Amino acid sequence: MAQRNGRTELGSERVEAFSDAVFAVIITIMALELRAPRGHTLADVQRDLLPGLVVYVLSFTLVGIYWNNHHHLLRAAERINGAVMWTNLFLLFWLSLVPVLTEWLREEYEHPLPAATYGVVLLASGFAYRLLIRALIRANGRDSAVARAIGSDVKGNLSLVIYAAAIPLAFVSPWISYALYVVVALVWFVPDRRFVR
Amino acid sequence: MAQRNGRTELGSERVEAFSDAVFAVIITIMALELRAPRGHTLADVQRDLLPGLVVYVLSFTLVGIYWNNHHHLLRAAERINGAVMWTNLFLLFWLSLVPVLTEWLREEYEHPLPAATYGVVLLASGFAYRLLIRALIRANGRDSAVARAIGSDVKGNLSLVIYAAAIPLAFVSPWISYALYVVVALVWFVPDRRFVR
Amino acid sequence: MAQRNGRTELGSERVEAFSDAVFAVIITIMALELRAPRGHTLADVQRDLLPGLVVYVLSFTLVGIYWNNHHHLLRAAERINGAVMWTNLFLLFWLSLVPVLTEWLREEYEHPLPAATYGVVLLASGFAYRLLIRALIRANGRDSAVARAIGSDVKGNLSLVIYAAAIPLAFVSPWISYALYVVVALVWFVPDRRFVR
Amino acid sequence: MAQRNGRTELGSERVEAFSDAVFAVIITIMALELRAPRGHTLADVQRDLLPGLVVYVLSFTLVGIYWNNHHHLLRAAERINGAVMWTNLFLLFWLSLVPVLTEWLREEYEHPLPAATYGVVLLASGFAYRLLIRALIRANGRDSAVARAIGSDVKGNLSLVIYAAAIPLAFVSPWISYALYVVVALVWFVPDRRFVR
Repeated sequence: MAQRNGRTELGSERVEAFSDAVFAVIITIMALELRAPRGHTLADVQRDLLPGLVVYVLSFTLVGIYWNNHHHLLRAAERINGAVMWTNLFLLFWLSLVPVLTEWLREEYEHPLPAATYGVVLLASGFAYRLLIRALIRANGRDSAVARAIGSDVKGNLSLVIYAAAIPLAFVSPWISYALYVVVALVWFVPDRRFVR
Repeated sequence: MAQRNGRTELGSERVEAFSDAVFAVIITIMALELRAPRGHTLADVQRDLLPGLVVYVLSFTLVGIYWNNHHHLLRAAERINGAVMWTNLFLLFWLSLVPVLTEWLREEYEHPLPAATYGVVLLASGFAYRLLIRALIRANGRDSAVARAIGSDVKGNLSLVIYAAAIPLAFVSPWISYALYVVVALVWFVPDRRFVR
Repeated sequence: MAQRNGRTELGSERVEAFSDAVFAVIITIMALELRAPRGHTLADVQRDLLPGLVVYVLSFTLVGIYWNNHHHLLRAAERINGAVMWTNLFLLFWLSLVPVLTEWLREEYEHPLPAATYGVVLLASGFAYRLLIRALIRANGRDSAVARAIGSDVKGNLSLVIYAAAIPLAFVSPWISYALYVVVALVWFVPDRRFVR
Repeated sequence: MAQRNGRTELGSERVEAFSDAVFAVIITIMALELRAPRGHTLADVQRDLLPGLVVYVLSFTLVGIYWNNHHHLLRAAERINGAVMWTNLFLLFWLSLVPVLTEWLREEYEHPLPAATYGVVLLASGFAYRLLIRALIRANGRDSAVARAIGSDVKGNLSLVIYAAAIPLAFVSPWISYALYVVVALVWFVPDRRFVR
């Protein structure tokens, strides 16, 4: 690990730029997967566009939250290294699966498996985000601005618990899972006060 | 609100970079949705490509105007905060719906509902843009360059009024709405003299 | 025009960033439109992938040339204004039509109309590029680095003449047009010696 | 060649930004090509999503490795010129073919030709990456940080040898090729110690 983290460099600009581009493409690609209604009546809109639009709003919000927190996190970081780059790519990998799951949910939102799989990807994304936080703390030191800013990370732990609960509960009813995903969105929507000072 | 706006940071570069990427993808994704004519005659082009191309020109122009004004707006801003980031994402959300509406209009441009829905998304985008302006003024202060530069925002108000009129008028004739969208495009096309000095 | 060009600002970074993103998406979206062969034999590759791949190489090269020259041009520029931004968007508009034409050529490359239309878009792009050059000279002044660097622009004029010839000649044989597009690519491929000093 | 390399400029920011955008779009476009399962059972996921997901993980990792090494390489470079820009575009061209091959492999992974073609594109990408290294050394000088950092490039040579072996071996069994691609991924996954100091 020492070797992989060996080279530390100042400035996170290019990691931010690359991540921003991935975030931007994920968000707009989900919009591309929205289906134009076949027809021109309100019933056509309801049948073809509405379910996809509701799922899109949820996914857009969740990805937007990640972008927002990611922005705050990397802003607070002064150094990056190989471990930061790979945990960042690992996070982007999981987030890149959100569009295909959004498409799947649009068609099959009434069934447990898609609802649970959405939770698995969100749980893995949250886990990857925590790995990224750890790598950043290791690269910047325990006394760094980023380490002090994160503190105990109650929200991060809470989200992981809720996702872990939402996955099996989807097999009771997918609507329970959707409600929990919205709860996590609301929890994170309030920006991270840890960085406020 | 004070809490959400609490953390203020200097520099709007990453918000600009992310927004630019979203703008860029929106514009090029609309071009992707243009259908290559099936066939090689002028009639094939007229049937398959032309309606989509005309709608694309309108949408490209409207999104291009937003990009242009957004560029001027953030250039004038010195500080951003959480409220700026979220209102900016809110704006990008509405603009991200332009491609699917462009696709819908291409197929169903003769009907009132698609023409009116296009107006709804434009009205919501204009409204989100005004929220972004407000958030920027709040973050930068009433005496800031960005606040003085915006002034009374006659154009912004005018656009909202025209969009609000275009939505019901689509049910009289969609062509009235299209004419009004072109009028707004022309109004904004002339760059914002407020920032000129 | 004086009013539209009124506000001049230093630095072309964001115009470059936005343009880069559009160039990048155009290039990768064309790759997305390549069709995976249906089947696993060499004959399947020849039938499904090869024509598209050849057209893709041409379009990739032409867009890559624009990106390269655009990079040199904006690097030499010190000031931008509204006219620069709009002529730049106008250039990107025409280039954004390259993917759909690439898709069309893939299917209908043996016919005059697609070959000629490809030339129309290239001619319009070249014309837009010249408008961008003019706007940059006007913004930076006749004695600026960018103005002196461009000089008489023999290559630009030559390209426009070749495109203008390729359009009607497509109706003699599309292969004449394709040969001429390759000639222009070769002419531009040699980077611009004007900026060398 | 002297002429093409004639103009040397300081700073590789825009080449990095453009490349990052291409990398980002390639990665997210591959995710877009993942097919949402038609149905909501585990069998539907296995049939529709799983093969594509496994190939996606491989392609994501390989492109991610390129992005990572590309980042280190350009960071170490102080000067770019026309040859750097064109070899960089040449690399991006080959990498832009990864998504269509990923799509092809998803459908036809049991056959030799797709497995071998994937190797051809990876070999060409590796070759292009070596051309880029050479152009960077030529632009920065044999005593530059980038030249000393690269040294003998054992890993690069090894990868090319493995790819060159994987191509014919696909006609013995495609699974040998896949195993070799994973080996190369593992070789590169360990970040480049050459840049560590």
